[in-house]
Amino acid sequence: MGKTSTRAALVFSFDQGDRSMADLLGGKGANLAEMSRLGLPVPPGFTITTEACREFLASGEWPQGLTGEMAAHVHSLEQAIGRTLGDGADPLLVSVRSGARFSMPGMMETVLNIGLNDVSVEGLAQQSGDERFAWDSYRRLLAMFGKTVLDIEGTEFEHKLDDAKTAAGVATDIELPSSALKTLVNEFKTIIKDHSGNDFPQDPQEQLTQAVRAVFASWNTDRARLYRRQEHIAEDLGTAVNVQAMVFGNVGEDSGTGVAFTRDPGSGDPGVYGDYLPKAQGEDVVAGIRNAFPLEELNRLNPPAYKELMQIMTQLEQHYRDLCDIEFTVERGKLWMLQTRVGKRTAGAAFRIATQLVDEGLINTDEALLRVTGAQLAQLMFPRFVAGSEHELLATGTNASPGAAVGHVVFTSEAAVEAAAKGERVILVRRETNPDDLAGMVAAAGILTSRGGKTSHAAVVARGMGKTAVCGAESLRIDGRAKTLTSRSGVVVAEGDLLSIDGTSGEVFLGEVPVEPSAIVQYFEEGLEIALKGVDQDTTELIHAVDRLMRHADERRRMGVRTNADTGPDAARARRMGAQGIGLLRTEHMFLGERRQLVEDLILTETQDERDAVLAALLPMQRVDFIDILEAMDGLPVTIRLIDPPLHEFLPDRTELAVQVAVARERGEDVSDDERILRAVNRLHEENPMLGLRGVRLGLVLPGLFAMQVRAIAEAACERKKNGGDPRAEIMIPLVGSVKELQLARAEAERVMAEVIDAAGCGLQFPIGTMIELPRAALTADQIAEYADFFSFGTNDLTQTTWGFSRDDVEASFFSPYFAKGIFAVSPFESLDVEGVGAMVRMAVEKGRATHPDLHCGVCGEHGGDPASIHFFDQVGLDYVSCSPFRVPVARLEAGRSTVSSGTSSSDSR
Amino acid sequence: MGKTSTRAALVFSFDQGDRSMADLLGGKGANLAEMSRLGLPVPPGFTITTEACREFLASGEWPQGLTGEMAAHVHSLEQAIGRTLGDGADPLLVSVRSGARFSMPGMMETVLNIGLNDVSVEGLAQQSGDERFAWDSYRRLLAMFGKTVLDIEGTEFEHKLDDAKTAAGVATDIELPSSALKTLVNEFKTIIKDHSGNDFPQDPQEQLTQAVRAVFASWNTDRARLYRRQEHIAEDLGTAVNVQAMVFGNVGEDSGTGVAFTRDPGSGDPGVYGDYLPKAQGEDVVAGIRNAFPLEELNRLNPPAYKELMQIMTQLEQHYRDLCDIEFTVERGKLWMLQTRVGKRTAGAAFRIATQLVDEGLINTDEALLRVTGAQLAQLMFPRFVAGSEHELLATGTNASPGAAVGHVVFTSEAAVEAAAKGERVILVRRETNPDDLAGMVAAAGILTSRGGKTSHAAVVARGMGKTAVCGAESLRIDGRAKTLTSRSGVVVAEGDLLSIDGTSGEVFLGEVPVEPSAIVQYFEEGLEIALKGVDQDTTELIHAVDRLMRHADERRRMGVRTNADTGPDAARARRMGAQGIGLLRTEHMFLGERRQLVEDLILTETQDERDAVLAALLPMQRVDFIDILEAMDGLPVTIRLIDPPLHEFLPDRTELAVQVAVARERGEDVSDDERILRAVNRLHEENPMLGLRGVRLGLVLPGLFAMQVRAIAEAACERKKNGGDPRAEIMIPLVGSVKELQLARAEAERVMAEVIDAAGCGLQFPIGTMIELPRAALTADQIAEYADFFSFGTNDLTQTTWGFSRDDVEASFFSPYFAKGIFAVSPFESLDVEGVGAMVRMAVEKGRATHPDLHCGVCGEHGGDPASIHFFDQVGLDYVSCSPFRVPVARLEAGRSTVSSGTSSSDSR
Repeated sequence: MGKTSTRAALVFSFDQGDRSMADLLGGKGANLAEMSRLGLPVPPGFTITTEACREFLASGEWPQGLTGEMAAHVHSLEQAIGRTLGDGADPLLVSVRSGARFSMPGMMETVLNIGLNDVSVEGLAQQSGDERFAWDSYRRLLAMFGKTVLDIEGTEFEHKLDDAKTAAGVATDIELPSSALKTLVNEFKTIIKDHSGNDFPQDPQEQLTQAVRAVFASWNTDRARLYRRQEHIAEDLGTAVNVQAMVFGNVGEDSGTGVAFTRDPGSGDPGVYGDYLPKAQGEDVVAGIRNAFPLEELNRLNPPAYKELMQIMTQLEQHYRDLCDIEFTVERGKLWMLQTRVGKRTAGAAFRIATQLVDEGLINTDEALLRVTGAQLAQLMFPRFVAGSEHELLATGTNASPGAAVGHVVFTSEAAVEAAAKGERVILVRRETNPDDLAGMVAAAGILTSRGGKTSHAAVVARGMGKTAVCGAESLRIDGRAKTLTSRSGVVVAEGDLLSIDGTSGEVFLGEVPVEPSAIVQYFEEGLEIALKGVDQDTTELIHAVDRLMRHADERRRMGVRTNADTGPDAARARRMGAQGIGLLRTEHMFLGERRQLVEDLILTETQDERDAVLAALLPMQRVDFIDILEAMDGLPVTIRLIDPPLHEFLPDRTELAVQVAVARERGEDVSDDERILRAVNRLHEENPMLGLRGVRLGLVLPGLFAMQVRAIAEAACERKKNGGDPRAEIMIPLVGSVKELQLARAEAERVMAEVIDAAGCGLQFPIGTMIELPRAALTADQIAEYADFFSFGTNDLTQTTWGFSRDDVEASFFSPYFAKGIFAVSPFESLDVEGVGAMVRMAVEKGRATHPDLHCGVCGEHGGDPASIHFFDQVGLDYVSCSPFRVPVARLEAGRSTVSSGTSSSDSR
Repeated sequence: MGKTSTRAALVFSFDQGDRSMADLLGGKGANLAEMSRLGLPVPPGFTITTEACREFLASGEWPQGLTGEMAAHVHSLEQAIGRTLGDGADPLLVSVRSGARFSMPGMMETVLNIGLNDVSVEGLAQQSGDERFAWDSYRRLLAMFGKTVLDIEGTEFEHKLDDAKTAAGVATDIELPSSALKTLVNEFKTIIKDHSGNDFPQDPQEQLTQAVRAVFASWNTDRARLYRRQEHIAEDLGTAVNVQAMVFGNVGEDSGTGVAFTRDPGSGDPGVYGDYLPKAQGEDVVAGIRNAFPLEELNRLNPPAYKELMQIMTQLEQHYRDLCDIEFTVERGKLWMLQTRVGKRTAGAAFRIATQLVDEGLINTDEALLRVTGAQLAQLMFPRFVAGSEHELLATGTNASPGAAVGHVVFTSEAAVEAAAKGERVILVRRETNPDDLAGMVAAAGILTSRGGKTSHAAVVARGMGKTAVCGAESLRIDGRAKTLTSRSGVVVAEGDLLSIDGTSGEVFLGEVPVEPSAIVQYFEEGLEIALKGVDQDTTELIHAVDRLMRHADERRRMGVRTNADTGPDAARARRMGAQGIGLLRTEHMFLGERRQLVEDLILTETQDERDAVLAALLPMQRVDFIDILEAMDGLPVTIRLIDPPLHEFLPDRTELAVQVAVARERGEDVSDDERILRAVNRLHEENPMLGLRGVRLGLVLPGLFAMQVRAIAEAACERKKNGGDPRAEIMIPLVGSVKELQLARAEAERVMAEVIDAAGCGLQFPIGTMIELPRAALTADQIAEYADFFSFGTNDLTQTTWGFSRDDVEASFFSPYFAKGIFAVSPFESLDVEGVGAMVRMAVEKGRATHPDLHCGVCGEHGGDPASIHFFDQVGLDYVSCSPFRVPVARLEAGRSTVSSGTSSSDSR
């Protein structure tokens, strides 16, 4: 094919790359190259590119030319080190490690000590002067190679190891003498021969090739695929492979290994933070055989190495301008850097570190803003268990839906509903949930399952509800029949016992753990001064960090942030959270409670006179509602959506009523009243109410309804104005599909407004706009915009109609398998489906502004509070997002981040 | 404003225009100009343009410059005639007639005899030597002016006229002597003064200006608006106004008036056809005072005028190359042409005349194809009442939904359902229908109402169901309580009596009128030879005409025509109708009847083993289904859609079952079985099943279901192949919203197909494609096309999701008010909404072919059989349309017409 002659290299030595090449070299490889470039002590080696992996995965064949390139790089390595791979006297040993673009911890494969065979093991023993070390290294190679390359169950090797320890009468691996290790090597070789049909390859080149191939193939294991789906990592990236000269932390007393962070990734406190384990290899730390020491132990044992490490860590942080984590090994007193990367951190640490770095002059405030996320801010806003409170950890599962919940254990949905009806707080415990459990999930304070991860039914539904959930706590044995839950340690929890679950950490605690509100919420609600009272130093610094970055986000963002609120108190709360108005006031929420009867009357009346009487009764109530809200949002826009849901939502459930009537009739009771209502319910019954008589349709078909609402709004505004207020009502017509609907509804609204305003002489004017929530509205937005003062995207409904599924019906029934099959990476109701629904939004904005250039556009669907979606809305040029009061700070932060990351500058936002 | 200096003229004399100027001059004005241009004897006059009308309607003000232009044209007219408007001795009289672009018969206004006043009436008497004629003309002017210009009730004038006849002791107007007419003129002037507050204007210029203004304003009367909505005429066209010198058919014995057609517009028979009424004006013919004579009467009375008329009619037909209708007047022996236009005709006449004109060399066959429509062909395919059978016409209403229906009268929906359950055919009679009547409408053979027109609830729903309906038969008195129906003539029809209704003509007959099947259907079903046996000459010629034009349409059309069919017999029938394959086979229709229980089992099973057992039982049944269809469509493509509807459609109704369980429990009966089913029904219950678990979602979530269907298809095809057949199955995946769904379903289908085909060794291959029926599928069609061999547009569902309303729910509840408000001109389920849904289709075709250039595209929604929609599908480049068997000929015809009208040439069609 002659491909090799034109394409780029498939292998790069560490001194050929740098950290900008992570796409090609993976994260680990790029950072190893960067450290080499900085002159840090990195064991030499080379990286096989992700391109080579992709070629292998696509064709299933070993890439042309790769063997030659690898051989050349191995040769260079041998020259640099002065040892030869497989040499009988002084062998070069190498490690083979995967390293993808994005970190996939625990997902991918590693093989150490490649280069050992029956001959070179003797050379290593000779050379190191430590026979036990050499044979221990050999048996490790055999086991890793067997598991990783040849796909042999790890327990095969572990059982033999256990047998050997028993035979030798020792408790730990390191106590095994050389003789036992030699026997183990033979036994391991037999396992390999038995399972793979072949002898363990004595040729080091063959070992290397097979190991690289195994790393390539590990990209497509089920667990790797699952992880990528959960983390939204693309399937087609492939992994790079790093081949590096081995250094040993387990060869003699002056060796050891450790991990370190340049700052505390938990709290964000400045100063290095890490562990050191003398006489050990990295995998021993993971195995937890011995407890690690604090990093200062290295200072005690080897002050020069410690000093060098400190210098390197400072250098790395200055260089990366961020918290770094590192892995290192000390071999016979010499420090070697094995890995570095920008380190993960908790939400609180992220805010603190970002502002610390600004103060230290390493980054500017724009960059600091990009170092924190709305998701982290949201985490800081959940209530949490009081730190330091005594509680017994029962188990840890997947942190499926954040928050802290405490309640009495129930094992069935029915019990949850029953208890909730009595006002009890319960935790619903199920092995796994299914759609039958929905009612119980709604009733419970939290959900705990022993099976399934972040994409299980329980997790998906709980997140959708904003309900705390811990899923897949696999160590718990749940016995639904006996109604008990047993922890690995044998603790038995019975129905009614108290349990506390932390959906943010995945932890499950016995008993009632005290919950405290978030200090950050207090900051938003009460202001800096009050929030700082009586909190500890860490919290003080955190609040200051959040305050600084929020203020910066507000300065930078182009988009306004409004809230969805239906009552005065909600509006006031949102305003304290920073909302710049109301983007969606759902007037139908004002028809609940005792007014429901009036609405039922409205539907059941048969003449326009009776209907007008009901509307006249509703008018003063609505007026008071609007006065409250306009007062709470005085001076800010309040977008009021006229009534939207289908009328039958205000009527009794059809099936329940039919049963009631049938049973009463069977008993010979008088059923005439109920029968009359049942007839009305049957008449108004819709097979698909979501696709029925609602929104503007209802307004056009039921004379007087919209007019009453518009009148109430206009009267409320005039009243506020009279009392010195600055009311800024905006009227929004829902569910418009055709410009003619808007024309008619608008004409009626204008007529009523003019009447009221002329009568009151208050000289007000209200914009009239429409929800864009139907595909047809987006497609004909150019026409609609000619009659709309603003567009507000109802992305919930738009998602429903664009995909053709209703949130109520499908989240529970098929989202879970759809996640499992990779059809969804994230629920399109949670984060905007940019390819589909997003294309609709973009089209509508473009078409709308084509005929109405200064058309004001916002979004009031729940996506308005979702970080990824906010960036999209900013890109397509919306003027504001609107979200629930609690999400307002998140939206402010993300709107600011979006401005900064897209490089656009701040401008007006209404 | 200086507008007049730059714009075009607002007035054209008849010799300045021609028939190409109908947009500006209206239909009547353009044709008057055309006749003038041809040198025919047209009374001179001029046309005020539609542009002038539009300007008047938009601004509400008299167009600048119009007065001057009119004055100039009146002056020219006076010069040409040699008389002066308002002249006391020999006055010029003119008519003022509306004339819009599209004919709106009876909708618009006319004022005759303008120019008469108290002085000129004497001059006219003198000049004509007929005092009675002059005063009769004046009283006509006063009445018309009063009604049309001054908006006075016509009955005011009619009552006075009746009084005058009573006083004079005469029966008809023409018997009234001059003296009585003079008195009447005075009385009419008093009516005008009393109602308008002003005297009748004596100034002829003022009369003319006011009349023109009244015609302009008549564009916006309610009845004109309603008519335009019904006929889909745009609202913003405006009307032209024709001002023409009066000629009189009522002045002396050698005068008269008539209407004529160049061929028989009812049958299509060649030869002129018309009526002549001596000594009369046009309005007398309409008033039906005397019976008109056949046209030959003119030949008897005035052979030269008759000969001239015959020559003119021949000339007009040659010139217009089509059937023309004309109005003419003979004034004192001289023939005057007052109007001509291409004449309306019945469906049968349209086909016959089109082919006659080809034979006469006037047009070519392409043009003939454009002279007939699919709607006309559809009319010829309905069964009809046997011509010439004796029956009593009770009433005539609006022809709301075509066909012929006979049945026993019922007055309630319940009675209709009850009777239908006993196998009786009924006609549901209601004053008007509402959603409560739906069940009765479904059960009835036909629907008759006394209120509402083509857009009433009854009409909309009936057309949607394809059910015969006559609406708004206002002369019928319906008494729902007494259960009687009384005709104007006093005939009383009671419940149970037989009634026959003709939905094509709007006629209602007493008793049972024999119904005969359509000869044209017989032609399609049995072929030319059999259809021609024993039919009359007219029918013979009609069948030949249809045959010629159908064959020509087939030659010319670019698009293929397939059918939607689910059974072998349906498929065979459609094939006889000309279907070139099946575009949509709904497999769920194969799960009804006795198999329903198996599907219920499928849903209720709890283990995969049980489920597999049910699927195994269904497999052979499905295989036989497919064998039948593939045999009927041997050699032609058969697109099989995998199961689509929500599972719960196969379960009992939830409310009914809940009532049943509750009542049985109340009675102490064992309900455990029913309770189990109820639990399952509750579990599967969806709030919006249209937006729920269906289509590919179901296929991906219920293991084995799609695989069973694909296996049955593959096995059926292999079996057909083995037996010498040519099976061409295509597999269609429904409700795809994301390419990943299609990828997964396709992979499974390919696996199963390969298994079956390899095992059978039959070497077949089936294309796999998808329905495009969700907005998201259209938006991401480029991605989807990479995994689809074909697209089939499911425009029913696409209409539902694009508009966000479900057909079941909204047609009955708000379509009727939506028509009345002008939001819809036609139901988007009947004719494709080109602006919205059409934009989706266009986008999907373009995007799909961008990544898959030879992507085969068709449509299988019901729009595939709708004429207007077919032209759109042709324009966007679909390869075929698919429709119900009965619509196949309509689709073939319209596909041919579309090719011809768009000027594209015939090419391949699969």
